[in-house]
Amino acid sequence: MAAATACATGTAFAQKRTDEPVQTIPAIRNLDPAMVELGKKLFFDPRLSKSGFISCNSCHNLSMGGSDNLKTSIGHNWQQGPINSPTVLNSSLNLAQFWDGRAADLKAQAGGPIANPGEMAFTHELAIDTLKSIPGYVNEFKQVFKHDKLSIDEVTTAIAAFEETLVTPNSRFDRWLDGDNKALSKDELAGYTLFKESGCVACHNGPNLGGNSFQKMGLVQPYKTASTAQGRVEVTGKDADRLNFKVPTLRNVELTYPYFHDGEAPTLTMAVDLMGRLQLGREFTQDENAKIVAFLKTLTGQQPQIGMPILPPSTDKTPKPRPFD
Amino acid sequence: MAAATACATGTAFAQKRTDEPVQTIPAIRNLDPAMVELGKKLFFDPRLSKSGFISCNSCHNLSMGGSDNLKTSIGHNWQQGPINSPTVLNSSLNLAQFWDGRAADLKAQAGGPIANPGEMAFTHELAIDTLKSIPGYVNEFKQVFKHDKLSIDEVTTAIAAFEETLVTPNSRFDRWLDGDNKALSKDELAGYTLFKESGCVACHNGPNLGGNSFQKMGLVQPYKTASTAQGRVEVTGKDADRLNFKVPTLRNVELTYPYFHDGEAPTLTMAVDLMGRLQLGREFTQDENAKIVAFLKTLTGQQPQIGMPILPPSTDKTPKPRPFD
Repeated sequence: MAAATACATGTAFAQKRTDEPVQTIPAIRNLDPAMVELGKKLFFDPRLSKSGFISCNSCHNLSMGGSDNLKTSIGHNWQQGPINSPTVLNSSLNLAQFWDGRAADLKAQAGGPIANPGEMAFTHELAIDTLKSIPGYVNEFKQVFKHDKLSIDEVTTAIAAFEETLVTPNSRFDRWLDGDNKALSKDELAGYTLFKESGCVACHNGPNLGGNSFQKMGLVQPYKTASTAQGRVEVTGKDADRLNFKVPTLRNVELTYPYFHDGEAPTLTMAVDLMGRLQLGREFTQDENAKIVAFLKTLTGQQPQIGMPILPPSTDKTPKPRPFD
Repeated sequence: MAAATACATGTAFAQKRTDEPVQTIPAIRNLDPAMVELGKKLFFDPRLSKSGFISCNSCHNLSMGGSDNLKTSIGHNWQQGPINSPTVLNSSLNLAQFWDGRAADLKAQAGGPIANPGEMAFTHELAIDTLKSIPGYVNEFKQVFKHDKLSIDEVTTAIAAFEETLVTPNSRFDRWLDGDNKALSKDELAGYTLFKESGCVACHNGPNLGGNSFQKMGLVQPYKTASTAQGRVEVTGKDADRLNFKVPTLRNVELTYPYFHDGEAPTLTMAVDLMGRLQLGREFTQDENAKIVAFLKTLTGQQPQIGMPILPPSTDKTPKPRPFD
């Protein structure tokens, strides 16, 4: 049967396309399944927040492309966040984490929101006190880490391991890269050609179509926004890095609206139009825009299949959530 | 192998216990799997709220016993809810929904929070406009309901169907009811005997150990609380129904802390102690209390295994969430 199938569809397949500026997602490294499972629990556990209401998944919702689909996120006490929540999907492929790259990797990132007063508004100490009061967690940490220490280091290691599994392979575009000529329509392919020839690919390249450099928002034309986010300068202190942001991935971009660091572009059409003007000094025609958008929608990959974790219950000793203090 | 196993553990099994005031969970009725799947998507979809941030699962979290483990829930704009979020688990077994029973069934309940200004703060009209703008939903509703109408009626029908599947069979106590003598320890069994003989079972009986009657909170001693919830009187208008609340289920009670309609009892120990005093005029000794708590912890059943749904993306026409308006 396999041979017959290969034969019947044989003409649709060319060789793998290895000379493109975009590549398929590399295989994830070997991870301890028990650590991944622990990380998943922590990712979904709102007890890592002061309120007991906000978890990692609140703003990086795995039902919604690993984002919250809001302009800027909602934090503790309904505070309006300063920036658009980037997707957690394929985030292990990024050169650094956060829009300004202030965290070197997923592990360094994971502790940030827990202790950010505008996000989960907790402290690492209280988060650890909480976890240590829950025998289900204490036992699981011990089994996974083979030692008795339970600190923010173990917590962020486990969350990062879970996040590493959140890749989305096998998009239609990946199938085309793998040699399936029928995976893309004529318009989608024309969109990809435009994407390359007009210069989008200069920043959105590699396996994550972005995530591998910092670039100035408003390279050709200045970007007008009410957002006060200054980007990379806040990390490096160099004025040349003002409004430099990590180039976002375009994988699953159909799911991760609205767009830009301030979330001010509600649709792909608007995002493509603005990117053309601001970064390339180019005005895409409606037809060109539509073709690029059609291409972008081929980047939606297989979403991770996540079984909701059952969280170990708190005990009489667990610190109480304080949503309204 | 099966026969050998049955033989080896044969002595542990008695006949099913059919004369107890508590019964195992009845099998759920035949439900259309496609409708259940659609209902699951809606249950997890924060686009049914004004903010785009709050879903059914926010306060009935299936990772946490179908509750939010908060005294009272957090609603739109971080409003403090008036009452403790009851678990959605096994809720189809209840005689009515909400603490005051104002909804006759799950379908009638499901529309409430969407339009409640203190909860999801949306309107049914806007929720339907949102769903109608999303082709993924439009197609799925059409396939499930075999007609083109997409109204709050279809939405709540699907959510209720999903919620009907959220039962938790096979707790250790159920295994004991089914004849497994080794399923409970001596102390747990002593706790169950106390639970029956002291009168707890007068209200907490049936397959859901509650959920089948309204009872006055503070029957023997008045209950002192800052909560303004008045209970059943707000539905019937009868003064005799003041502070009458639906008796909560005790299934999975280990997971659904804190307790009572106002969430003022943080631990099972305190809940048992207060119930004894307020409802039975009885002061349980520490040992009695511990045994009843041990019994209550045997009521944790198999939690539903939920695969996170992948929600169909919004389109350019979808109304934008308005978290900060």
